[in-house]
Amino acid sequence: MSAPVRVAVAGLGTVGAATVAILQERRAHIAERCGRPVDVVAVSARDRGRDRGIDLSGCAWFDDAAAMAAGADADMVLELIGGEDGVARAVCERAAAAGRHVVTANKALLAHHGRALAAAAEASGVAIGCEAAVAGGVPVVKVLREGLAGNRVTRVSGILNGTCNYILSAMRESGRGFGEVLAEAQGLGYAEADPGFDIDGTDSAHKLAVLAAIAFGCDVDFPQVHVEGIRQVTAEDIGYAEELGYRIKLLGVAGETEEGVELRVHPCMVPEEAPLAHVDGVLNAVVVEGDAVGVGMLEGRGAGGGPTASAVVADVVDIARGARMPLFTVPVSGLRSVRAVPIDRHVGPCYVRLTVADRPGVIADISAALRDESVSVESLIQRARSPEDAVPVVLTLHEAREDAVQRALARIGRSEMVAKPPCMIRMESL
Amino acid sequence: MSAPVRVAVAGLGTVGAATVAILQERRAHIAERCGRPVDVVAVSARDRGRDRGIDLSGCAWFDDAAAMAAGADADMVLELIGGEDGVARAVCERAAAAGRHVVTANKALLAHHGRALAAAAEASGVAIGCEAAVAGGVPVVKVLREGLAGNRVTRVSGILNGTCNYILSAMRESGRGFGEVLAEAQGLGYAEADPGFDIDGTDSAHKLAVLAAIAFGCDVDFPQVHVEGIRQVTAEDIGYAEELGYRIKLLGVAGETEEGVELRVHPCMVPEEAPLAHVDGVLNAVVVEGDAVGVGMLEGRGAGGGPTASAVVADVVDIARGARMPLFTVPVSGLRSVRAVPIDRHVGPCYVRLTVADRPGVIADISAALRDESVSVESLIQRARSPEDAVPVVLTLHEAREDAVQRALARIGRSEMVAKPPCMIRMESL
Repeated sequence: MSAPVRVAVAGLGTVGAATVAILQERRAHIAERCGRPVDVVAVSARDRGRDRGIDLSGCAWFDDAAAMAAGADADMVLELIGGEDGVARAVCERAAAAGRHVVTANKALLAHHGRALAAAAEASGVAIGCEAAVAGGVPVVKVLREGLAGNRVTRVSGILNGTCNYILSAMRESGRGFGEVLAEAQGLGYAEADPGFDIDGTDSAHKLAVLAAIAFGCDVDFPQVHVEGIRQVTAEDIGYAEELGYRIKLLGVAGETEEGVELRVHPCMVPEEAPLAHVDGVLNAVVVEGDAVGVGMLEGRGAGGGPTASAVVADVVDIARGARMPLFTVPVSGLRSVRAVPIDRHVGPCYVRLTVADRPGVIADISAALRDESVSVESLIQRARSPEDAVPVVLTLHEAREDAVQRALARIGRSEMVAKPPCMIRMESL
Repeated sequence: MSAPVRVAVAGLGTVGAATVAILQERRAHIAERCGRPVDVVAVSARDRGRDRGIDLSGCAWFDDAAAMAAGADADMVLELIGGEDGVARAVCERAAAAGRHVVTANKALLAHHGRALAAAAEASGVAIGCEAAVAGGVPVVKVLREGLAGNRVTRVSGILNGTCNYILSAMRESGRGFGEVLAEAQGLGYAEADPGFDIDGTDSAHKLAVLAAIAFGCDVDFPQVHVEGIRQVTAEDIGYAEELGYRIKLLGVAGETEEGVELRVHPCMVPEEAPLAHVDGVLNAVVVEGDAVGVGMLEGRGAGGGPTASAVVADVVDIARGARMPLFTVPVSGLRSVRAVPIDRHVGPCYVRLTVADRPGVIADISAALRDESVSVESLIQRARSPEDAVPVVLTLHEAREDAVQRALARIGRSEMVAKPPCMIRMESL
């Protein structure tokens, strides 16, 4: 058996501690798989005194993670700190510069600086593992980078944020509103005290950017990803979705279209019979479409110590066995340059909910506004009657270009018979 | 870029032709991933004259696939012939003996002779890829062998045969009986003219044996796999399942229990809220449980030229990149020896349908027989009334040992008030 692979771990939060625990407890098993042992030789975290339930007695301690990445006697550095810049970025850069392999769970860093990191790693001849950065324990990076090597991948979409999926699932099950369910999720630890990063879609967008780069072997300019969160989704919309045979999910969608590559994160109505419709609670799932393999789905736990550490350890084992995949599937020199299609040019069906005065002529006005933009109506529900009050009108629209729909909705929104701004949710057949 | 990897393809049926097509059409893309081109240099099939829509002009032709495996000027041999013995086995053995890597889609061969093949490959220092052998385009072998390297996998279960899943799905959707739907599936090409291999569970059992060996790093003695097919599943049972909130699926289950490893293929009732319940039509799906990652699922197309070729090409690319995973995850010397738990000692809940005379006392007799075996009833439905005729009684039984349930059912079956042999379907919470 060859010499041990020496690993330095930067960050000993839930994921870091779980990773060290697996590497230690399953040392013999991992050595059998790698043909050589994997030893944790150095660690770095903020608080040296804290009890993390793991034995760090054999590890060198560094207060400064970046200094560890540069100077520890290690073959591989695990960056489990997080954040798109700052110390996490320094750890990865210094490790690569020093000729050490890097394993990171950091989607923000990869979404913003992935190309630069990949180039630095290639220049030094080291690998970058990033399985844990997308969908936690779901091995979608490996499936895209290796398992679908014979395919041209045309589309990747999925439920990439467990917090949002928990909230939307709980809203549907209980009929409660967004605010109440968010508060409950915060109490249960499924949502952060400051939930914006999750519920406004940023976290999903980071993961989508990484997935797209890996799936298409392309450069992704993160600001080009269209991002909407779930704050605007109401219990009413969820109820109508159910009535129409749909579920509302926050999806990330990266797909090749005639106009270029779409990169968008927003609430979607997905048909009840679609596999993604049944992915509930904190689970994540990714649907992948390849020209040879057809449509497939992977589902599992997208966050938490165990699932994320599982992904980190898989990367460690791969690299220890000698695997050297380029970060984004192909070497940096081979990355395709793509322009994201602006959301204005997205083409698809959608759901619209209007709050209107219950007066004769209102449907005629709405219909005219849509007709004038060549948007055609698939269904219309106006069930409640209330001559004195505003009532909801729910429409589903056939496939149309986003800008046409938006122009029609703007005109409808300006009508004096419309009481509130229209609510629009795109529909996705998956 | 390094010298090309030379590939010989044995078998040019749907999968073989699709594999050659991908290797040729995506040659540049594959070379980019491997760091070296992959060239098909030799092929073998029964009929040289047939037009397969691929260009074989640059390939040496062999009438004898085993001779090609032994003698072609190739680094890797793809065995896409099938069958547990005969020429397929000879191809793999001779290729390995001659120091050529092997990629095979042959579950029957691996289920029966996997250990011997793995030993032969290790002795020659060659790799064996077998992604295509289980669940076609679903990359479950890669996920188990590599993606879950940090886990102790405790259970693998799934829908492993598209023909059976198509038939059961169509029976549920249409309310029709097994025979009628089978005939339709044969007409559509989803079932073979001689369907026994699929519908009697053998194909699923082969795949389960391979999955179990890979997941647990163990030796599987194929005859120890308990196998039942779907011929006995009636439209009536499917209807009752739906009423109880379940779907009937043919599952393969490999799980560690206190008694050892369970290896069983049989129709199961799975709860509607389980992810597997929504895997319909010809799709395959595998649920994997690991101690770190929790429960995850992979779903996709389990058969057909494109999906299977996708898996074959992924193995080719891995091996061309230098990957050398042992066939069953760990070297043959490290394979655990496990004894399969006999089905008699399986513990779980189940569904029972009886056809009984509608007379006072019948339920008391049934209840007494179950009580005497310490089997407890969870629910009982006796809806129809027909004093002159036999009526169905449907029970669900709490978790109990299989032999106790079988003894109770045998006693019930002997009663003069019972018109037909009891029908029992195990229930699985996934």
